[in-house]
Amino acid sequence: MACKVVQASDVAASFINEIKATIVSSNIKPLLVGFLANEDPAARMYAQWTAKTCKQTGIEFELRECPRTELEDKIVEANEDENVHGIMVYYPVFGGAQDQYIQNTVSYTKDVEGLCHKYRYNMYHNIRFLDKKETQKCIIPCTPLAAVKILEYIGAYNPILPYGNRLHGRIITIINRSEVVGRPLACLLANDGARVYSVDEFGIMEFHRGDGIKLSKHEVFETKITLTEALSKTDVVITGVPTEKYKLDTTLLKDGVIAINFSTFKNIDLEAIKQKASIFVPSIGKVTVSMLERNLLRLHQYQTFK
Amino acid sequence: MACKVVQASDVAASFINEIKATIVSSNIKPLLVGFLANEDPAARMYAQWTAKTCKQTGIEFELRECPRTELEDKIVEANEDENVHGIMVYYPVFGGAQDQYIQNTVSYTKDVEGLCHKYRYNMYHNIRFLDKKETQKCIIPCTPLAAVKILEYIGAYNPILPYGNRLHGRIITIINRSEVVGRPLACLLANDGARVYSVDEFGIMEFHRGDGIKLSKHEVFETKITLTEALSKTDVVITGVPTEKYKLDTTLLKDGVIAINFSTFKNIDLEAIKQKASIFVPSIGKVTVSMLERNLLRLHQYQTFK
Repeated sequence: MACKVVQASDVAASFINEIKATIVSSNIKPLLVGFLANEDPAARMYAQWTAKTCKQTGIEFELRECPRTELEDKIVEANEDENVHGIMVYYPVFGGAQDQYIQNTVSYTKDVEGLCHKYRYNMYHNIRFLDKKETQKCIIPCTPLAAVKILEYIGAYNPILPYGNRLHGRIITIINRSEVVGRPLACLLANDGARVYSVDEFGIMEFHRGDGIKLSKHEVFETKITLTEALSKTDVVITGVPTEKYKLDTTLLKDGVIAINFSTFKNIDLEAIKQKASIFVPSIGKVTVSMLERNLLRLHQYQTFK
Repeated sequence: MACKVVQASDVAASFINEIKATIVSSNIKPLLVGFLANEDPAARMYAQWTAKTCKQTGIEFELRECPRTELEDKIVEANEDENVHGIMVYYPVFGGAQDQYIQNTVSYTKDVEGLCHKYRYNMYHNIRFLDKKETQKCIIPCTPLAAVKILEYIGAYNPILPYGNRLHGRIITIINRSEVVGRPLACLLANDGARVYSVDEFGIMEFHRGDGIKLSKHEVFETKITLTEALSKTDVVITGVPTEKYKLDTTLLKDGVIAINFSTFKNIDLEAIKQKASIFVPSIGKVTVSMLERNLLRLHQYQTFK
C-alpha cells in the first residue's frame, strides 16, 4: 500500500527544536499558568501533559488549582501579574455560556489558547496582525493551528502560491463544526484559499472566498450537497467527532486523499484508510501542545519588547 | 387576601413617559436596528412587539432580516453606520457558543441588550461606569435590569440606605441561573447588598458581599442549603424556569414574601401565591422592553454628546 502514515511527533519535532533554541539563545524564562478548576480527570491529565511537555522544552509551567467560584478572580490576578506570560484554563469549568464568559476574561495579551473574542474575530475576518505595522501576528487557537501546520508539513499548502492563497484549488471536508476546533479550522483553511465543506450532525456548510478566491475573507453558505458528493471531490478530509461510535466511511473517499484525525477517538480506521489515502495523520495532539508553547513565546515577546 | 398584584404595565408606565418626554424635549431620533436571522416564530413575535412598542414611544425601529450566514457582516456594517444608535439580535441564531460569539461582535457603543463581554464583565465586577469621571453608566442586560426596577418600584430596595447597598439584609432566591438572566440578576442583587440563593437543576449557589457587605463586589459560594431551607428564609422569590411543568411550591414560602415571575410560563400559581405573598408580579416583559428603549437612549446620548 502506498499510504504514508505521518505521526504528529514527526511534525512537532521541528517546532520543539525551534522553541528550545529560542529559549536558550534569548535566555528567557516564559511562564505559563494553567488553571484547573474542575474535577474532570481528562482535564487533569491534559494539565499533567502540559507540565511534562513544557519541562521538556524549557518553559516554566505552574498549575494553579482553585474552586470554580474563585476562578475568575484568579484569572484577573494573573492578567495583572507581569511575571505571568501566558494563561490557559482547563475546560469545562461551568459548562455552556459561562465558560465562554471565562474565555473572555483572559487578557488577550496572555491568551495562549487564542480563545478570547479579539483573536476569534480577527481569525474569522482574516485579520492576521494585531498592529497596523504588521509586526505582531494574532494568536490562533492551538488545535486549528496544529492542523494548519500539519497541512503545511505534508504538502497540502502549495508554497509556490502567494502567502495567504496557498490552499487555492483544494477541496477540504471537515467533519466537526464546534466553536473550539471545527468552525475556526474551516475558516482558517477557507481564508487560505480552500473550498471547505464543514459537516456536523445538522448538515453541511460551505466556507470559501468565492470563485477565483476574489474575496479578501471567506464567506459561509448553506449548501444542499450530500456528504457522499462532498467526499467524492475532497482532497483533504479532517475528522474530529468526539465519540467512539463515529467511523468515517472510507469507501466514499477518492483515491490518493489526505486524511487527518484530530478526535481523541479513532474516527478513521487505519487498515481501511491505507487502501485509499496517500497520507494519513492519525492524531495531532503533540503538534497542538507545540502550538501552545509557540503562542506563549509569541506573547512573551510582545510583552517584553514593546 | 392581603396580596397586592402588581402588573408590569404599572411599573413600565413611568419609564415609558420618561422616554417619550426625553425624545420630544431633546428632539432626537434614536434608531434601533433589530436583526432577525432565524425562522423562529417566537423571535419574530418579539421583533413585532419591539416594533410596536418603539412606535408608541417615538423610537425609530428597523427590522433587518438576513440569512444567518450573513448576520455577522450585517452587524459589522451597522456597528460602523453612525445613523444606527442601537443594535439587537433575535436569538437563537446558530445556538450555543456561536451565538455568544455573535453577542460579542455587536459594538459595546450600540449594544442595547448589554450582552457583550465588556458590560457583562463590568456587571459581575460591580463596575458601574464606563469612564473614570463616572459620567457614563454601563449598560445592564434588559431582563435583569427590569427585575431590579420592579424591585425598586415595589419597595424591596430601601432608599434610606446608600445607593449600591439598598438590598442589605434582604434574602432573595432566584430560580434560574442562565447566562442571560438568572446569573446576571443574582450578581446585580448581590452587588446591591442582598444575600442571593441562585437555584438551577444542579444545585444552589450563594451570591453575596459577605457579612456586613464588607466586600466591594459579590462573591459566589457553593452551598449545601436545601431549597426548602432557602425558601423558608426568603424575602423575595423570583422564578424564571422556561417550562410549563415547573410550579413553585408556595407552601415553602414564608408569609408576606414578595414573588416575581419572569418566565414566559406561569411558574407561580396565582391563587396559591395570594395565600402567601404580600406582593406578586406575574410577568415582567413590558418593563424589559422599556429597559431596552432606556438603554438605547443612554447609548444615543453617549454617541451624540462626546
